[in-house]
Amino acid sequence: MTAPFVFDPTPASIPPADTVYRLKEIPNGPVNSHPLNPLDFILRAAQIYPDKVALVHPNVDYPVQYTFAVWYVLHSMYVLHQLKDIRAQRIQNLAYALIRAGIKPGDRVAVIAPNSPLIADAHHGVIAARAILTPINTRLKPSEVAYILEHSGSSLILVDHEYTNLIPAGIKVPIVVSKDTGRVGDPYETFLDEGRRFSEEKSWGGLVAEPDEHAGAVLCYTSGTTGRPKGVLTTLRGSYLAGVANAFECQMHRDSTYLCKRYRILPMFHAAGWTFPWSNVFAFAKQITLRTVNYSQIWDHFLHSGVTHYCGAPTVQVKANQQTNDNKPLISSTDWRGKRSTSTQTATERDCCNREKAGAAPTAHLIAELEKIGIKPTYGPFTRNYDQPHWANISLEERARFMARQGQAFATAFGVRVVYPPTDDEKNPILRDVPRDGKTVGEIVTKGNIVMKEYFRDPEATRKAFLGGHFRSGDLAVWHPDGTIAVVDRSKDIIISGGENASSLAIEQELASHPHVLEVSVVARPHLKWGERPMAFVILHPQHAKKWAGRHHEFGNDLKEHARARLPGFACPEWVEVVPELPKTSTGKILKTELRKVVAKL
Amino acid sequence: MTAPFVFDPTPASIPPADTVYRLKEIPNGPVNSHPLNPLDFILRAAQIYPDKVALVHPNVDYPVQYTFAVWYVLHSMYVLHQLKDIRAQRIQNLAYALIRAGIKPGDRVAVIAPNSPLIADAHHGVIAARAILTPINTRLKPSEVAYILEHSGSSLILVDHEYTNLIPAGIKVPIVVSKDTGRVGDPYETFLDEGRRFSEEKSWGGLVAEPDEHAGAVLCYTSGTTGRPKGVLTTLRGSYLAGVANAFECQMHRDSTYLCKRYRILPMFHAAGWTFPWSNVFAFAKQITLRTVNYSQIWDHFLHSGVTHYCGAPTVQVKANQQTNDNKPLISSTDWRGKRSTSTQTATERDCCNREKAGAAPTAHLIAELEKIGIKPTYGPFTRNYDQPHWANISLEERARFMARQGQAFATAFGVRVVYPPTDDEKNPILRDVPRDGKTVGEIVTKGNIVMKEYFRDPEATRKAFLGGHFRSGDLAVWHPDGTIAVVDRSKDIIISGGENASSLAIEQELASHPHVLEVSVVARPHLKWGERPMAFVILHPQHAKKWAGRHHEFGNDLKEHARARLPGFACPEWVEVVPELPKTSTGKILKTELRKVVAKL
Repeated sequence: MTAPFVFDPTPASIPPADTVYRLKEIPNGPVNSHPLNPLDFILRAAQIYPDKVALVHPNVDYPVQYTFAVWYVLHSMYVLHQLKDIRAQRIQNLAYALIRAGIKPGDRVAVIAPNSPLIADAHHGVIAARAILTPINTRLKPSEVAYILEHSGSSLILVDHEYTNLIPAGIKVPIVVSKDTGRVGDPYETFLDEGRRFSEEKSWGGLVAEPDEHAGAVLCYTSGTTGRPKGVLTTLRGSYLAGVANAFECQMHRDSTYLCKRYRILPMFHAAGWTFPWSNVFAFAKQITLRTVNYSQIWDHFLHSGVTHYCGAPTVQVKANQQTNDNKPLISSTDWRGKRSTSTQTATERDCCNREKAGAAPTAHLIAELEKIGIKPTYGPFTRNYDQPHWANISLEERARFMARQGQAFATAFGVRVVYPPTDDEKNPILRDVPRDGKTVGEIVTKGNIVMKEYFRDPEATRKAFLGGHFRSGDLAVWHPDGTIAVVDRSKDIIISGGENASSLAIEQELASHPHVLEVSVVARPHLKWGERPMAFVILHPQHAKKWAGRHHEFGNDLKEHARARLPGFACPEWVEVVPELPKTSTGKILKTELRKVVAKL
Repeated sequence: MTAPFVFDPTPASIPPADTVYRLKEIPNGPVNSHPLNPLDFILRAAQIYPDKVALVHPNVDYPVQYTFAVWYVLHSMYVLHQLKDIRAQRIQNLAYALIRAGIKPGDRVAVIAPNSPLIADAHHGVIAARAILTPINTRLKPSEVAYILEHSGSSLILVDHEYTNLIPAGIKVPIVVSKDTGRVGDPYETFLDEGRRFSEEKSWGGLVAEPDEHAGAVLCYTSGTTGRPKGVLTTLRGSYLAGVANAFECQMHRDSTYLCKRYRILPMFHAAGWTFPWSNVFAFAKQITLRTVNYSQIWDHFLHSGVTHYCGAPTVQVKANQQTNDNKPLISSTDWRGKRSTSTQTATERDCCNREKAGAAPTAHLIAELEKIGIKPTYGPFTRNYDQPHWANISLEERARFMARQGQAFATAFGVRVVYPPTDDEKNPILRDVPRDGKTVGEIVTKGNIVMKEYFRDPEATRKAFLGGHFRSGDLAVWHPDGTIAVVDRSKDIIISGGENASSLAIEQELASHPHVLEVSVVARPHLKWGERPMAFVILHPQHAKKWAGRHHEFGNDLKEHARARLPGFACPEWVEVVPELPKTSTGKILKTELRKVVAKL
């Protein structure tokens, strides 16, 4: 178990008793309008619930927890001793420390960290300094990190001690290391202390509010499965409205607890945690941060920490659902259900995304599995499938098929459309909707407040992405008569088999319904006669793997038969390969590029 | 009981099957930002839940109910026969009908109606025509209505048949009368039908989206207790953000039912129903509209219609809580609690208001009474009292005292401050906060997105209200160390007794804790020695009125003794007058001006 919460808080963390959570006024700003900024959330939470636990970081050598503002931590299952440390004060100190370090409005501040107080602080503190947060995926190679630091032009790096090796040698910008202790002597804490001293006790009133709500908030880089990563810049306005929408759609509130786990559950470095670092604060909810992948820890928090919400990509859910680290189920589904008073919600990753593209579509099979153990999936952050009254009268499997659709636009998002894709050389194409027939395949496009500001320093990519006055997702989908959209595939993942377009996603969905399949990915493999044919890579369900040991060819035939009963001939896999694992990005997306490389060598 | 839902829908109400809920694009609008507009809510609801019941209008000769969009009504306790009428289509028809009638963007459209489909439609349809909704209080005198019609420059009047007498003879603008039938032949339905024909089936795509989110949304006139009513103009942006905040703060969702009742519960003509006509739609909730005052109907809906939310001013709650029309409690509190699975919430009227000032502060006594019968009060629309964990360990009465404070800023609102009031002749006063000591009295000011745009056609009043770069509420309050504000009084209601400032509200609060007091109001009465002294007007609790019959003087002494045990001498009422009722505005505010007239004649 982890150490108890005993430590001396840094003196700089204790704010003056009369702290006013209000920034310096924008001179001559309008009376009846203020710029939307997710920084508002923490100021309001610190004002209204100063003593409420905001952040718990338990499963580490130096556990910490922070309230929204000021005083003693009141109660928690983790706490043995009272603490005097402070969230909003730390955020204020961070903002001052950045300004002291020369950070100017619009500068980029890079953060390389797993889910931890450092990156949580940064979501608020960096924008409090009017800078742009640039979270970097900790699973990248040093050369990729170097590219992002260079491309973003980051002026300062906040880095977790475990990841200092990712920073290129000889880099010229200041680096602040966090040892993730929260204790006096930690370099990050010293940095915060210096910020506090620099503030000269001017408190929040010494910081200037950003007057432009269209200013940049977060610069996230794509974990690009091909090519150089692109920098997706979001706006303060978009982040505010997405944060509010997520809190509303997930019905988060003061008594909610959000589990924020690295890799296997949504990491904050990925798309700014889909704005949940802000949504939690907006709703006055508690968030638990976990640095490492450990399924027994996850289940421990599910069972004992009152977790009500978490996020994860579909492939992640499979693991959280099915197995512990050593591939054995930790608890039975009955245990889980019996101990949860309210159903846990999960925002699974969606194909039609927030600011830029997000990951894979959840399969009907996965949704059904999650529901069985009392987890209610919802989706964000740009579309959501709204359950309909008539679903009460249909089977779980049927319902899961409806639910696997990507649905309709989220609260505060603008509508989503499926259109005939324009060609890149059209100047000002007028986008035309495909018919809502559930058959015609088009491209998902959207527009409005929650769309990214731009691809940073890449006007050509921005122009292409915004062709036709909409954000082009690159996702292929059909539009159903009821207005819901259903992703067919990423345009590059479609398999052209005998002149027919076979959706790799649709094939995967059918193969996943085979009871012995845990995970499956399908890519095109060249074929002399048909041009391309589908090839399936399969992870067997641990409960059935033994049965097929040494007989993978026979399993392949079994699966092909399963497919033939459900799919048109051109979409049936020609080849089935049983594998122990699938290549994935740090956010759990299957790397089809890697599978294609395997295929190319066959 | 009411008639069953049998009628022929007007053919114009049925939209084409392939309706796309999307307005005409703003040419060259940005990809990553769209103007905030509460019209989005109905378009999204009609798209996502076309078949869900949006509006029920039951207790009338011609009951109707409408879904969010298109098809048959699926189920309801009211429905005996399937309907084919449509909310979003009616709204679309209304927008076209207004445009056909010559309404241009920014024009004012007056609505004179009790809570009914007419005014609900207008909240969406008028802004869909890019016009400004001007709801007029149905309790005003014809001369006052004439003033508002004249001052607002309304270009068209939508009026309920019961209130046509309020419209001045010879007025030159078109008048559309609703007989509140929803049936073919009703002049309002004919007006909608003409709109449909005029649309030439261009549907929503034939309507242009308002490009400016700061454009006017609703123009509400103050029910001014003194002087001419002032026109409070709100913006689309503010209405959108307030609507979202109300839905979030009240935890409304798809299964919520909002009771929208005239006079005794918040009428829509009052401050646009505090944005609830939009919040309900944003949350996909159902709203029930009631035209008339009838407590047994209210209780009937509380018990049988699944009502989860309603709004009402504090004085209104007293009646809803305590008595039926004939002053007898309708059901015991146990009945009510036993039959409600979730606690009903009520947004009581608050002193620190949305766009302009709102009504009276709720007393601790009232809050305690409501809680006893399972009603959980929350407040809106600009501040709210957030309950704190430590309240779990204090008595109901103590807690009610905390809850009676006006609290802190609402979600999406900007912060609220209590400042030393500037004088009118200062040019650009810098507002200074009063100390947070719970004692120093200052004026409540605020700013930001949810503040009104302006006093319509009254730049001088706007200048005064916006002095110091904030909206001045005119409410006097203290600021507590925990950041909550507590209204002391309207500045004009303070009683200067022997040089001391006595808060009429604080006196009322203490007098209301006398178990025989149902309602009480306190005003200043001139006094030779002390300048002014408090005079109390009291309605006795019906259960105790008999006891004091003919002995009001004795009751007065009893109440004075009660006061002396709780209040400083200068704040104790010198006179107590038992009255059968108190003069009130249509929204339930006690008209102290009327009481002062009574006092002046003594």
